[in-house]
Amino acid sequence: MTVGVLGSGTVGQDVLNLIERRKPIFEDVGVKIEIAGVMVRDVNKKRNVPAGTRVTTDCDFLQECGVVIETIGGVDRPLDILRPYLRSDRPVITANKAMLAERWDELREYALDGKLYYEASVMAGTPVIGPMSTVLRASTFNKLQAVLNGTCNYILTQMEGGQDYAAALAGAQALGYAEDPPTLDVGGFDTAHKLAVLARFCADGNFPYSAVQVTGIENVTLADVQDASRNGEKIKLVAELERAGTGWKATVAPQRLPADHPLCTAGATRNALVYEGDECGTLIFAGGGAGGMITASAMVGDLLDYLLGFPGHVPLH
Amino acid sequence: MTVGVLGSGTVGQDVLNLIERRKPIFEDVGVKIEIAGVMVRDVNKKRNVPAGTRVTTDCDFLQECGVVIETIGGVDRPLDILRPYLRSDRPVITANKAMLAERWDELREYALDGKLYYEASVMAGTPVIGPMSTVLRASTFNKLQAVLNGTCNYILTQMEGGQDYAAALAGAQALGYAEDPPTLDVGGFDTAHKLAVLARFCADGNFPYSAVQVTGIENVTLADVQDASRNGEKIKLVAELERAGTGWKATVAPQRLPADHPLCTAGATRNALVYEGDECGTLIFAGGGAGGMITASAMVGDLLDYLLGFPGHVPLH
Amino acid sequence: MTVGVLGSGTVGQDVLNLIERRKPIFEDVGVKIEIAGVMVRDVNKKRNVPAGTRVTTDCDFLQECGVVIETIGGVDRPLDILRPYLRSDRPVITANKAMLAERWDELREYALDGKLYYEASVMAGTPVIGPMSTVLRASTFNKLQAVLNGTCNYILTQMEGGQDYAAALAGAQALGYAEDPPTLDVGGFDTAHKLAVLARFCADGNFPYSAVQVTGIENVTLADVQDASRNGEKIKLVAELERAGTGWKATVAPQRLPADHPLCTAGATRNALVYEGDECGTLIFAGGGAGGMITASAMVGDLLDYLLGFPGHVPLH
Amino acid sequence: MTVGVLGSGTVGQDVLNLIERRKPIFEDVGVKIEIAGVMVRDVNKKRNVPAGTRVTTDCDFLQECGVVIETIGGVDRPLDILRPYLRSDRPVITANKAMLAERWDELREYALDGKLYYEASVMAGTPVIGPMSTVLRASTFNKLQAVLNGTCNYILTQMEGGQDYAAALAGAQALGYAEDPPTLDVGGFDTAHKLAVLARFCADGNFPYSAVQVTGIENVTLADVQDASRNGEKIKLVAELERAGTGWKATVAPQRLPADHPLCTAGATRNALVYEGDECGTLIFAGGGAGGMITASAMVGDLLDYLLGFPGHVPLH
Repeated sequence: MTVGVLGSGTVGQDVLNLIERRKPIFEDVGVKIEIAGVMVRDVNKKRNVPAGTRVTTDCDFLQECGVVIETIGGVDRPLDILRPYLRSDRPVITANKAMLAERWDELREYALDGKLYYEASVMAGTPVIGPMSTVLRASTFNKLQAVLNGTCNYILTQMEGGQDYAAALAGAQALGYAEDPPTLDVGGFDTAHKLAVLARFCADGNFPYSAVQVTGIENVTLADVQDASRNGEKIKLVAELERAGTGWKATVAPQRLPADHPLCTAGATRNALVYEGDECGTLIFAGGGAGGMITASAMVGDLLDYLLGFPGHVPLH
Repeated sequence: MTVGVLGSGTVGQDVLNLIERRKPIFEDVGVKIEIAGVMVRDVNKKRNVPAGTRVTTDCDFLQECGVVIETIGGVDRPLDILRPYLRSDRPVITANKAMLAERWDELREYALDGKLYYEASVMAGTPVIGPMSTVLRASTFNKLQAVLNGTCNYILTQMEGGQDYAAALAGAQALGYAEDPPTLDVGGFDTAHKLAVLARFCADGNFPYSAVQVTGIENVTLADVQDASRNGEKIKLVAELERAGTGWKATVAPQRLPADHPLCTAGATRNALVYEGDECGTLIFAGGGAGGMITASAMVGDLLDYLLGFPGHVPLH
Repeated sequence: MTVGVLGSGTVGQDVLNLIERRKPIFEDVGVKIEIAGVMVRDVNKKRNVPAGTRVTTDCDFLQECGVVIETIGGVDRPLDILRPYLRSDRPVITANKAMLAERWDELREYALDGKLYYEASVMAGTPVIGPMSTVLRASTFNKLQAVLNGTCNYILTQMEGGQDYAAALAGAQALGYAEDPPTLDVGGFDTAHKLAVLARFCADGNFPYSAVQVTGIENVTLADVQDASRNGEKIKLVAELERAGTGWKATVAPQRLPADHPLCTAGATRNALVYEGDECGTLIFAGGGAGGMITASAMVGDLLDYLLGFPGHVPLH
Repeated sequence: MTVGVLGSGTVGQDVLNLIERRKPIFEDVGVKIEIAGVMVRDVNKKRNVPAGTRVTTDCDFLQECGVVIETIGGVDRPLDILRPYLRSDRPVITANKAMLAERWDELREYALDGKLYYEASVMAGTPVIGPMSTVLRASTFNKLQAVLNGTCNYILTQMEGGQDYAAALAGAQALGYAEDPPTLDVGGFDTAHKLAVLARFCADGNFPYSAVQVTGIENVTLADVQDASRNGEKIKLVAELERAGTGWKATVAPQRLPADHPLCTAGATRNALVYEGDECGTLIFAGGGAGGMITASAMVGDLLDYLLGFPGHVPLH
């Protein structure tokens, strides 16, 4: 099985290293993985990848790929590269929630056809998309709440410790947690991308990103956080989806939650999701939200699922 | 698709009602479910099942079944009924951890062949077996800890409130939570069955039930619980699996855990599981552990997965 | 893989022996065949079957079967036995053209679902149904002519040698070629059954047996045969299917054909079929029409196809 | 489903036209065919293809193809183009016996993986490879004889009419039947290519082309043909495969056969194959050997089989 990788940042490198490390698992299912190529911007940059990995700036190697793992991010650039490949009905593994959220018009048909694998796109290594696209569909979905952005989680936790917003943000940027400008994270748009992806499994298979109402954490003050704390509460950036009349209401906004709420007890460094269904009851999923290897673990997991014969993550019709 | 159901207790009735209620989901995947028959002990007993359901004391209808859902419980009785059926390579959906744990010698080949679906067997409606048999295998597993028995959870929580063990147990029995004799629950054996099932996905595909070291909660005293409480801890019946030398150590025993440990914050009525892998990090799964409909939701979810073309839950080789 | 066999006449015994003889072929595709049981009328009758074969008068063993091979013949008796089994969506391999022709109303849904394998039903060991249900569908079908009944072939050939019809028929009966009464063969009905089966692959997926116009060979005289011979022709019982207006005309009747016509040159002991399509041109298929092992070869071939993952023979929609 | 076509000679054009003409058959299996591109040497050459067909001299469109139909012929040129594409595990449909025979070392793994479809490569529109790779494997193969080259058939038939070899060859060339130089046909090499392909289904999955002993028809004289005719025989270029000790003997050579032998009665314009198995008996397949549409019918049939979910033609292991 020939695998191509687009991009070789932290996640891309970790994907390559994990495939190498877990060779025995692939041999166990009777498959030998061969990396056909890795598309990068600069072939001379030093990288931590297995010796002999073929690194290139063009994407001719896609012709040879049985499956492609996309890790470059962005919205239109990866889709431009993938477009001819996707037309051949070959599978793509991606963690790219921005592309999935904003280019669903084009990607939906491939998702419905089982060609897109994107467990890593919403909660990194925590498996929620697999269950939501399969077994959980037996229950009647009612509501979900989730904390999905590690940078916001970090900033708000620092504020609980007494820092003001600007200082906490600067700290996050210094540590490399937040991009510059940090709008995608602190503005709530990354969380909104993820909520749109989730909504397509439990509310409406064609849920548009534009229907998510988004408020970021930029206006959360230290006073707000301290006031919450005095009342036994924490402020979290919460993605929420629930029924509204005959349709659905999707919002991303800061919320005050009791300190013993599952979204709070999951801890400062973990993403968490609370899923409520009439029959399955209230389910809680939580796991680490940052780190290339955590994301890589779900992408290589998707690769394994593909090799085991499972279709990709199919949204509601 | 003709479906047969063995047993018609709480779970069996809820399975039948949920299949009826979720008809649109099955129609969405192009399948019309027909119940070929329901095997019961007493056809005259009043039941809450869809009108017209064919109830019978024999199991001749298995001949007509494309898939069978087993809800009768026990170890040898369900297996005796299923044995000829299983030889035909048709799928079985079950929540029966006792049978899975204690008759693995016979059942393993069917599981390896993808014919057994048993998401409901360990954490009822909380999806852990699906992820552990697929995407999570990409990570290197190290350790898991879990609270898996609702009756023990209830008793220990009552003791936190000041009841002694005997009174708490009597209360659980009065509410119908615990069987009589309650050994399977309070002796830790139900939890051990579930741990054996889990171990086959992350440690050793042939992990024997007999290798689980089991201590129940019968000897936990009110003084123990109160002492823990004074130290900011709770006592839980914990299933634990971790590396030991070149092998694995599996234990079920009461443990004192910090009150903010994920197994404690999940709450008195929820099962919880903490999964640690080198790459995926620490993951938390939690959900309601009791109630027929919660269990039924996973069994009907398994039915949906089967109809979507997914194989059953395949353990490690 | 557990296989059940219904009936143990010549064909049934040959199926059992061929499965035993060709074990390496099944091992080559990774399958070990186990005969779950053979249903017979009389368990004490001496049979040429592999030692240890489980012979029984009931059909309880169907519960254990992953696939069933039907060789008992007749119309309603095999269907009554198979009905509950078929409802479970398990596959049936059969050579029973009478049942296929006359009970299509009930069997069609299983055929459309790919659960019926019946290569042996029309031309025994000569593969025509496989190609007609797959690759040949790319061509526009126009016409077919076929000689499909060995008994008629034998009788007419004997008449070419100078015997009259009654003597030739008596000879066929003495040799065990013709049943008593021989109406099914000499009346053209067996040939008509086969033509109805063929028509469903190339003309109309719901082609009714009753639409075949049937004339047998009972009124063919020695004088007719000799007159034909003087003109360089032979008389054959020909099944013919061709376009008629917007529909199709299906007939079974004796025809005078040039001695060098493919239906004649195939020889006295061979079935033959001439298939005409706009694009594929004129194709000829011929092979032995009698003998249990010839029929068994196609039935075991169907078993192999099933094990290789091929669906059964799907008619036009 | 996006389809690419390599080459646009007679066969390539007929493939394109047949796909267009048989649209309803593809719609019947739920597929809309889209031609991604057709690779040609000269885009300005006038072609009989559906309006709007995208014709190009490069093969970039392969990136978009879910399946590729190769009609350019030759040995290394098509393989050089297909090599990267094949590594992606996408299917190829081809009638190219030269490439299959001479580059089996490289192609075999793809054939074993079910990715190569080549019904048209040996007997054009007559389905022999399908049956030989599936249902016929239930029988023990012993021997085959076949007439597989239309040009030789034409020349030898002309010689039966009184022309000498040189005149008959010149006639064949004038009619465009024979290439210039005609060695591939009259030297027996085309027939040998085909025999090597056949041998891999019934004798040895790795049968080498070089093991075929080849004698052409160049030395067959008019006197030879006339002498045969006086003895009620015809001379045919016969491909023959039979057991020889523990192995197999494969030869291509002119043979004198009785005029009523199936290879002769098939007629001057038809290919024919006689297949002998212990259990299936003697089977005869015959059909038109020349003409682009006949070949196209099998290639589009292969496309249909692929879309129906059938694997390609898998040789013996």
